[in-house]
This record gives sequence, C-alpha cells and structure tokens, in this order.
Amino acid sequence: MRKMKGVVITGKNTLAISDQCPIPEEPCPTGAFIRPLIWSPCTSDAHLCATGCASLPYLIGKAVGHEMCGEITKVGAEVHDFKVGDRVIVCSVMPMWRSLEAQDGMAKQRQDNLYGGVDFPDRGGSFVEESYIRDADMNLAPIPQGITLEQAVMVPDMMCTAFEGVRQLGIEFGASVAVLGIGPVGLMAVRAAVLHGAGNVFAIGSRKPCFTVAKEYGATHTVDYHAPDYLEDIVEANGGLVDGVILCGGSGKELGKGLSILKKGGTLVNLSAYFSGAPIEIDPSVWGFGYGDKTIKGVGCRGGRLWMSRMAQLIVTGRVQPEKLITHRYHGMDKIPEAMGLFLNHDRNLIKPVIYNDSI
Amino acid sequence: MRKMKGVVITGKNTLAISDQCPIPEEPCPTGAFIRPLIWSPCTSDAHLCATGCASLPYLIGKAVGHEMCGEITKVGAEVHDFKVGDRVIVCSVMPMWRSLEAQDGMAKQRQDNLYGGVDFPDRGGSFVEESYIRDADMNLAPIPQGITLEQAVMVPDMMCTAFEGVRQLGIEFGASVAVLGIGPVGLMAVRAAVLHGAGNVFAIGSRKPCFTVAKEYGATHTVDYHAPDYLEDIVEANGGLVDGVILCGGSGKELGKGLSILKKGGTLVNLSAYFSGAPIEIDPSVWGFGYGDKTIKGVGCRGGRLWMSRMAQLIVTGRVQPEKLITHRYHGMDKIPEAMGLFLNHDRNLIKPVIYNDSI
Amino acid sequence: MRKMKGVVITGKNTLAISDQCPIPEEPCPTGAFIRPLIWSPCTSDAHLCATGCASLPYLIGKAVGHEMCGEITKVGAEVHDFKVGDRVIVCSVMPMWRSLEAQDGMAKQRQDNLYGGVDFPDRGGSFVEESYIRDADMNLAPIPQGITLEQAVMVPDMMCTAFEGVRQLGIEFGASVAVLGIGPVGLMAVRAAVLHGAGNVFAIGSRKPCFTVAKEYGATHTVDYHAPDYLEDIVEANGGLVDGVILCGGSGKELGKGLSILKKGGTLVNLSAYFSGAPIEIDPSVWGFGYGDKTIKGVGCRGGRLWMSRMAQLIVTGRVQPEKLITHRYHGMDKIPEAMGLFLNHDRNLIKPVIYNDSI
Amino acid sequence: MRKMKGVVITGKNTLAISDQCPIPEEPCPTGAFIRPLIWSPCTSDAHLCATGCASLPYLIGKAVGHEMCGEITKVGAEVHDFKVGDRVIVCSVMPMWRSLEAQDGMAKQRQDNLYGGVDFPDRGGSFVEESYIRDADMNLAPIPQGITLEQAVMVPDMMCTAFEGVRQLGIEFGASVAVLGIGPVGLMAVRAAVLHGAGNVFAIGSRKPCFTVAKEYGATHTVDYHAPDYLEDIVEANGGLVDGVILCGGSGKELGKGLSILKKGGTLVNLSAYFSGAPIEIDPSVWGFGYGDKTIKGVGCRGGRLWMSRMAQLIVTGRVQPEKLITHRYHGMDKIPEAMGLFLNHDRNLIKPVIYNDSI
Repeated sequence: MRKMKGVVITGKNTLAISDQCPIPEEPCPTGAFIRPLIWSPCTSDAHLCATGCASLPYLIGKAVGHEMCGEITKVGAEVHDFKVGDRVIVCSVMPMWRSLEAQDGMAKQRQDNLYGGVDFPDRGGSFVEESYIRDADMNLAPIPQGITLEQAVMVPDMMCTAFEGVRQLGIEFGASVAVLGIGPVGLMAVRAAVLHGAGNVFAIGSRKPCFTVAKEYGATHTVDYHAPDYLEDIVEANGGLVDGVILCGGSGKELGKGLSILKKGGTLVNLSAYFSGAPIEIDPSVWGFGYGDKTIKGVGCRGGRLWMSRMAQLIVTGRVQPEKLITHRYHGMDKIPEAMGLFLNHDRNLIKPVIYNDSI
Repeated sequence: MRKMKGVVITGKNTLAISDQCPIPEEPCPTGAFIRPLIWSPCTSDAHLCATGCASLPYLIGKAVGHEMCGEITKVGAEVHDFKVGDRVIVCSVMPMWRSLEAQDGMAKQRQDNLYGGVDFPDRGGSFVEESYIRDADMNLAPIPQGITLEQAVMVPDMMCTAFEGVRQLGIEFGASVAVLGIGPVGLMAVRAAVLHGAGNVFAIGSRKPCFTVAKEYGATHTVDYHAPDYLEDIVEANGGLVDGVILCGGSGKELGKGLSILKKGGTLVNLSAYFSGAPIEIDPSVWGFGYGDKTIKGVGCRGGRLWMSRMAQLIVTGRVQPEKLITHRYHGMDKIPEAMGLFLNHDRNLIKPVIYNDSI
Repeated sequence: MRKMKGVVITGKNTLAISDQCPIPEEPCPTGAFIRPLIWSPCTSDAHLCATGCASLPYLIGKAVGHEMCGEITKVGAEVHDFKVGDRVIVCSVMPMWRSLEAQDGMAKQRQDNLYGGVDFPDRGGSFVEESYIRDADMNLAPIPQGITLEQAVMVPDMMCTAFEGVRQLGIEFGASVAVLGIGPVGLMAVRAAVLHGAGNVFAIGSRKPCFTVAKEYGATHTVDYHAPDYLEDIVEANGGLVDGVILCGGSGKELGKGLSILKKGGTLVNLSAYFSGAPIEIDPSVWGFGYGDKTIKGVGCRGGRLWMSRMAQLIVTGRVQPEKLITHRYHGMDKIPEAMGLFLNHDRNLIKPVIYNDSI
Repeated sequence: MRKMKGVVITGKNTLAISDQCPIPEEPCPTGAFIRPLIWSPCTSDAHLCATGCASLPYLIGKAVGHEMCGEITKVGAEVHDFKVGDRVIVCSVMPMWRSLEAQDGMAKQRQDNLYGGVDFPDRGGSFVEESYIRDADMNLAPIPQGITLEQAVMVPDMMCTAFEGVRQLGIEFGASVAVLGIGPVGLMAVRAAVLHGAGNVFAIGSRKPCFTVAKEYGATHTVDYHAPDYLEDIVEANGGLVDGVILCGGSGKELGKGLSILKKGGTLVNLSAYFSGAPIEIDPSVWGFGYGDKTIKGVGCRGGRLWMSRMAQLIVTGRVQPEKLITHRYHGMDKIPEAMGLFLNHDRNLIKPVIYNDSI
C-alpha cells in the first residue's frame, strides 16, 4: 500500500488533512486509479462528522467523501471501455455486479458497505489525491461532451439518489407530489418529479435560495414549514391529499407528517438517513391504521454506469441543470474542511459547495 | 326504515342481540337485500368489542360483522346479474366503483368507511336478519357449484385479505417468505404464498392447531415465537434473510421484528390493524438506516365481485381448502356472542368459527 | 327519441349534415346532456370516412366524432358533481366503471364499443347539436380555470391516448425513445416522453409543421423517413438501439421497422388503428426470433374523469401546451366536413383542426 | 486449445461424434471446467439439426446442447463459491453480469450469443466431454441435497424458461391461462401457472403422455387441437376469453390463435423460437385492431445462479416434480444422437430424454 493525502474525520465536528490514506500499488485487473478533478461534500458526510462517526466508528481516520469526478491515471488489464486520461463520473455507491444481489435487481444493496460511497470501507472515501475503484467498466461513466465538471459532480449522489427516489415513487402523469425537505437532494427530487410528469409539486423548506431553485426546477408551490398550518395548507391548495411524498431530511417525526398528507393508496419515498439511533415513530392513524394501502419505501442511491450515463443524458439534453444547486466554489483539497464547515454551521445560503482540485 | 334483529357491541367485551337494527324499506335501484345463511366473526370484530369501539365510537350499538354469505331476497330495478334466490358471497369491504378512487385503482380505499366491512357506517355490519348492499352487481359474487357455505364464507375477508397481501408482496418464484402470526388470515397468507410460487415459507405462531394447518397449506417451517432465538433460527434455516414478510398480528413491535429478518430490497406487507392508538416504532438499524430499500406496505382487504370470484375459483379448482380453518360451528344468530367469546377469551383451539343461520 | 342535427358519414369520402340524429327525451339518472362548444375531428374519424365505415358498417348514417368540449344543459337526478352550465371535457372513450372490466383495471376495454369515442354505438358520436353521456360524474371533467377551449379539446383523445401510450411504455429516466409518425398523437407522445424523463427523443415524420412542434415539445432529433437509411441513422445518433418505440401511424409494415431499432428487452407501444383488414407481418429476426424479450403493446385511449383531470392539470401547470397542435380553426357545425377534408386530402400543413360551435 | 469429444451437427438431420471440440488449456480466473454427469437435448437443438443450422450457420461442426449438470474439475483463481468436485447445475444461457444489459435488468440478452445456451458461440454447446464456463460464481448453481441429477437437469432450460415466461405473464390469483403447446416447456408452464395462482389452466396439445403430465401438474382442462372448434370450446369452458396465454410451439400462425382467445387487456407470452424465416402474421381483428391493450411478449430463458437456485428450491420444497417430464433414459455420450432422433422422428411418446454420462 502506498500512502497519500486525504481528508479524514478525526472526531466530533473535526476534520484534518492526513497523508496516511492507503491505496494499493496497482489496481486489480478490472480496476482503475482516478485523479480527482472536482469534489463535492454531502450532507451525509457532514452528519458523519457531526457525530464523530458514532454509528459507523470504523470510518474514523479514514478518507471521507463520495461525490467526485476525475481523470483516469491507470487501468487494469481487464478494463475495456476506459483508458488513461479519460474524464469520468465516479459512482458514489459501489454496486457489485457479480453478486447474487445484482441478480436480484439490487446490486446497490451490497452487504459489505453500510455507509455507501466507499468501494473500500476499510480505506474510506474519495476525498483523496488518487482514488481506486474496483470495477471501472461498470461503475464509471464517461463525462459526455458539453457537460461541465460542476454539472458532472452532481450526478453521483444528487441526481442518482433523487431520480431513483422518484422512479420508485412511480408518479402518474398529472399527479401531485410533496417534497418534504429541499436541500440539494430534495431540490433534485423536485426536478425529477417534474420530469416524471407530476402536476402539482410542493417544495417544502425554509430557506430562500432553495425556494428560488425549486421554482426554477418546476415546483408549483413553495411552502415554508414554519407556517403554523403548512400541512393543511398543502392539502387545501392541492384539492385533497397528495399522490406521493418524497422525504429528504428531518428526524423520524417528518415521516409521520409526510404520511398525514398522503392519500390512501399512495407512496412515501424516504431519502433521509437515520443515524441518530432514535426510533422512527408512526402514529397508526396517519397510516390508515395499518390497512390504508400507504406504502413506505426507504430508498438508497442507485449506482452503476448505465444509471449515471442516463443521468448525464438528462443534462446533455438540457432537461436538468444541476449547476443551479452550486452556491459555493473552492480550489484545492485543503479547502474541503471549510466547505464541510458550511454544513456544520448550518449556513443559510448553502445549497451545495464544490471544490476544484488545484492541480488541474 | 324497518327494524330488525342483529348483534351489536354494547361496551367493552359485551355484545347483545338487538331488535333495533335499521334497514330501508326498499333497496336502491342497484341494491339488494340478502338473508344470511352463514356468518363468521373476525378478529377485528373482536378487537372492536374488546375496546368497546374506542377508536370507532360511532359503531357502538350498531350491528357488527362483515363475513357473511346468504340468499338474495330482493333486488333493485338496475340489478342485472342477480335475482331473488341466488346464493351469494357478500363483499366484506364495499368498494365504490363509481368513484375517483376506483379510477385510481383503489376502489377499496373509499373515504366514508374507516372500519371496512360495512356498506353503511351509520347502520353497521352484516350480523343481522337481513342485510342491504348498495351495488349488488359489483359487490356480490355467485357461490359457484360445488362450493360449500363454509368454504364460501372464508372468501370475503380471510381469502380476499390474505391473497391481496401476498399479491402486493410480489414474491418471486422460489423466494422465501415469513408469515409472522398465523391466525386465520396468516394461515391463508401461507397458502397464498405457496400459490404465488414461494420456496421456503416460515409460519410463525404458537398454537398447535395453527401449526397443523400451516403444514397442510404448504409451510416448509413452523416456528414457535416463544423460542428464545426464533428470528435468528429463521435466518439460519433460510440460509440468509428472507425475501418477503407478511405481518398478521401483534402490536407495533412485531413490525420491527419482521424488518429485522427481511433482506435489503425486500418488502414487508402488514395485514394487521392498529386500533390501540400506541405508536408504531421502528429502529432505524433494522430498516437499513432508511436507505436499505426495504418497503413497508399497509395493505387493506380487496373487494369486488371479480376478486371474490377469482378467490372462489381457487376453491373450485382445488387449490385452496379454506374449510381447514374452521374449528367451531354454531347454529342460530343467538350463538354469535358465544362464538365471539372464543376470541375474547383467547381460546387456544380456535382458528375460525362459523355460525349457520337457524332459519335455513 | 328526439331528433337533432349532426354530421354523419354517408359513404366513402362523403359526409353530410343530418337532422335525424337521435337523442332520448331525458338523460338517465347518472347521465347528462351537453351542448358542444368546440369540436375536433380525429384521424380515425377520417379513416372511417375514407373507407365508408367498411370495418364498422353500423356507423354509416350515425353521427361521427369523439373530441368535444361543451356546456352541460341537463343532468340526471343522481349526478352529484356537475350542474347545468358547467363547462366540461367530454371523454372520447366511454369506460364503464360498474363493470368487471373496470375491476380488472381495464374499464376502457368495454365490449360494446369497438370504435371507441361513442357512448352509444347505436346512435354515434359527438358531432351533434346536443350530446348525451350516461355517466356524467365518472366520464366528464371540469375545464379548470385558465384553460382555453382549444386546449381542453386536445385532452379527450390527443393527450389521453398519447400519455397513456407513454405510461405503458414505462421509459426509464434518460432512456431513448423513437416516435414513429408525428401527427398530432405522435407529437403529443413526444411531449409525454419528455415528461416521463426520456433523454434522446427521435421524432420521425416528413412534414415541416410537425417537425417544428416536435422540437418545441422537446424532441432531440427530427428524422425524415424519406431519407434512405433513416433507421440506421437513428441507431447511430443514439449510440445503439433505442429503449422504447411509440408507433403512431402507418401500415402494419411500420411495426417491423419499429422493432428493428428497438433494443432487446425493450417495448414498442402501438397507438395506430388497423382498419384495412391487411395482416400485420413481423419478420422474426427483428423480434429476436421470438425470444429477444421485445414487448409489443397495442394500447387504446384511456378515459375517465381522473385521467382527463390529470391531463388538464398538466396544461394548468404549464407542462403541456396542446394548442401548438392546432393549425386550422373554423366556426359552425357546417364547417366540420371541410375540416375533415383536410385529412382526406392529406393537407401537408395540417396538424389538427378545431371547429367552434357558432351558437356560443 | 485442447481438443475433446463432443456431439456436433454435420448437416440437415445429421449428427456425429467429433473429437475436435476445442477447450482452452486453463479456465480464466472466474471460470471453471465441468465434467458432464447428465445431458438432455432440447427441441431447439433438434430444430437446429433439422434445418442444418440454416439460420445460425456458424454452429455447424460445433458442439450442440445446453442442458447439462456436472461436476467441477477445475476452477480459476477468482472463483470463490465453488471448488473441484462440486456438483452443479450449468446455466443454459450465459448472462454477462458485468454488462450494461445487466445494469438494465436484461443480463440474459447479451449481444454475442444469438442462440443462447452457449458461453462461446465460436466453440459451441455442452454436449462435450468437458465444458468450460466463464463466470462460475454467477452462472453455476449447486445441486441441493436431495435432488436427483434427472431433476437438476430439468432446471437450466425447462424450468428457467417456463417459469420466466409465467413470471412475465403476471397472472392474477384465480385468473385463467391457456398454454398452447404442451411439450416439456409447455408442461412446465402449466406447473408454473398453477404455482402463480392461476385458476383455470388449459393445456392444449395432442399427445396422451403430455395430457397425463398436464393433469398431474394441475391443468384443469386438457384440449386436443385436432378438435374442430377447440378454441371456441376453451372460451366456452372458461366462461369468457382467457386472462393470459403462453405459446410454446407451432408456427407463426399459432400466435394469432392465442390472441383470438385472449381478453382485451391480457398478455400473451411467446416461448417459441422462429427459425424458419417465415414472417409471423397477425390478423388485426384478433389484436383489437391495434388498440385492444393486448400485449405480446417474446420471452427468452432467464439464467444466472440466483434464478437457477430458486428453481431448485421449488424442487426441494416439493412444489415441482420435473422428473415427470422424463420419458427416455440413455447412458453414454454416444447415445445422444439416438436421443435427438426421438425429436427428429416426432416420436409420439417422447416428452424429454436424458443421457447419463457413462463415466460416472
């Protein structure tokens, strides 16, 4: 193992630049090394940091991060579709395609990767000088011509998660959707809902920059959850309970709020992670006493080259403008802790930061 | 309104025969009157009685019951497919086919009927001398030749609920299913799972008569939940987490137990009603921290003539022998309170009682 | 039966204004009378006329037409959601909601209406002075505020058919779709594909006004089928076979062309009607020799109030601008034959005509 | 390349034992060598032979066959789940799990294998002394304890194809299915339909041994297609058009027959291969003129370890008794041509032959 520079969580709310992040000497035959060109920290990185990796303690001291695009620096002998110098989107989750889970349609739900975003739980994430991926042909996607790095780095998690959530929601044309929580994934879910043919789309949040993007992405209603009766207001504006709910943030209590405005027979897709250990509580009355045909799905990010390429295609064709999410830009790995600090300090102007690698 | 005899809940754990159950003088044009030939009390009737209708107080003093077959005594002018004297299975839930819910594929989830099983929440259920149904052509099904009354009366709720639950579970051929709770609906879910191509079917309960029927219905494993590590035992016997879970009983805690043995990417179908008011609590770790692609469905009984006829067809073709559920037989409406008492007293030999109407 | 004015097919390529179109004296309890405000002829009306109703001879002499919006003039006693004076979109197909087909999810595929668009095959269509509908609450939809009559009259068939076709196609986000034939339904299918998240959308036709609208609706590529290798060109531009095909026009031979550019595992949705009697021929090699997992669906227009309201909601929210289809405007029932003549004479500037009723 | 013994097609209706079938010296890292213990010829092998490989000429002179179970003789360094001596079911189709097709849910529809059943189109099938498979962990399945070789060899194609066909048919509980053609795949489709909850199952054929097994597998009606009005008889016995059709044999004309007894809104699954080159002709009237919502699927065999293991699980649990299909037993590779001759000579007592390898 060689050692390299990377950003690691050292404790509650603390990060550091380490030079002890390991990487093998050579990639495996199907693997590749990638030099990052652009990174983006995720809310879940911040959650891990804020809790000092309480729920996933083995990540302490290992590289953090899972949203990155870069340039290939080396490929194994069995890599057929990529070569050194190719610019690529790197999968944030690392599906195992040669697995029984994959044969069951759930390549993403591999058993050896609880956090996601990490091909090597023992080594950590992608905020490193050089990143190693085990299955290049399957889990990298070329950055198509005409797409910027800022657009491309919104693919691995923001688009791949939000669009998978809406896919599993399965909205009918013209149906109504409420997106509870409009951070970057929630905003992308607004866009995905519009691109799945929704009619009314309620974007529920509290910060002005998010409302602005929600409108640009096609939300028909923006709703401030500080308003005393905002849930009743949604139902009234919609002319009835909504057909689908996407939950992107909050504690376990929001799940019940989502169910309370969901029609019988509808689906709620959860895109939040619950790392605090507190139980999720559901009042039976908002769940139709258990027999109201309300479905609750806890959906994880979908990965793989095909899905990432399809996301990229939505950018190429102009259907999605992911760069609208980016509110902060930095240069150099050393600025990653500052960018992470935006989340930790609850900056009200933040949607999504990116960090360019200085060396490009 | 005429008045007639019926069985009503009078308070916590108390029932009475009333002669004040109302019925209109004439059916509406699409409606019909039905004289019951056989009744069967349901666990949910017993729950209502045990709580004195705490969660649905408007049902106090009204006729209870929703599993019944009978003979048509009168039809409205717009009933085309049935005539006086026809023997019919009566729908336990009363879908409204001329409704926007029906156009949305959820005819069963009508808004004016929280309890289900009751075409007229203001009048009550079907443990009456003569029953009134509003849409005979759509919500009655003929009893096919060769089917007994005992078999037929297992259709409206036991089969219609359990088979709908398994339908929504969507098991793959050869996949594994755990049925948590093997009262009569759970046992029928065992049979439905077998008839949807399941491989391993775990029937989890505690009473011997239920285990016996579970085996006859095709369960590959019977599991006593008093065993200290019964959940681990299931996973071991199955060679891994199960592909699907059906939950038929217990409090909100069982839902978490079901999730704990369910594979990531799997579905849990809940067929229990939660009337106690206590919240359902889910530990995030058994739900994949919210992103494990574990789906939770709260499924209600499906009704309507087509579904009931398809259930009946499964009896006609010998695929289902519902009479195996029946452990107790009575004669005369006056014996209904005694039959209900089997549930209220937790009789360990009970699976399902039926009461023949004396007058036949 | 009263008699009224209407437009009837009298033979091959001939139409006439008749004053012998029948309508009952009173609507049935759930029915309503509607005075048309705007009509639009459909290609299928023109096909019927061009063949002199060869395949559906009982339609000779009866009123033609199935795209209409109007004002309610009378309602039956059991109509709850509409009243005299309401402006409504009238369903082009007439699903029977109280039917076993409806309980099977196929309300639209009623057995007594081979042509569609006609609530009363014995009386004919909606190009009449006053129209009668049997189930007003279920098969009318209110015209929402802010929608014009021209927009609304594109709902009953153009939107209801095209969006149902794309719904059944089930495109994945970012996937590629080819629309073979871009008359008005094909153009609407282009828009529906974009609103279901398609990436590349190939609009295949030959006429300039259609290409213009296709682009405005979001087609990424317009393709002239007079080009010698247009099918190969599509595959090349797409970087491989397409994920889905919508077929909107042509003879049975186009079906094979569509299959030839469809990936294994993909779906072709047919929205064309085949009235000529000629067999549809499929070369096994383009169908993967029968085992290539290529699915062929022959999809009919979906109706009912919910679906029409959802279509209208797509107009209200600005997602669809159906008025772009309208190239010709007329006033007065007497002009309907002239409008139909645009189809019969293959006017190359025609997309869709509308006729306002003079009397408004 | 080493050379070994195998059975090859030499021309129309002629087979020979060759000693020139190639196999590499060593398996690739994920590959394995397997010594066959039992083989079974398939109708499609016979079709190839009868036409002298007219449609797939590159198969002339290469080993034929794709149904085989055997014992592992060597594994590559990256094979984790199998070792020398393990008895395994060998996949008949060879899905590529590291492929974009797999990421699209269609691993089986790889582009380099038109015939299926052959991991190496350039080398041929599995009727050889020793067989080579490229991805052992993904495309082999252990033979579970208690399953005989005869049972196991029915998994790779007979079960894997028929159950996939019924899975894609998606029958509702109690619905009716017609299986047109009851050779071994059709018979297995009968069993699969029963295990997917069908009510009426019509088994349509002409030979007595097939009718006997159809009954044992749960067919409710056996139908001889020599009867003059057998299609009308089916509809009458069923009380209407059937809900689903499985097509297992015949020329392109049978497809129209299947559509003619299929309800509007129903699905026909084709499991036949069309190698003759003749076009498939569909009369529009049996396809609802193109808008009857009748779906036609051309389904290929599904492979992979998970699917094969689930099939095996259906045998272990006693749900399927595939050995009922076996009518002829032979010993020694030299007898394979004789076994193939049963098909070529249309032996009316044949359902399925197996050949044990002498050397075991």
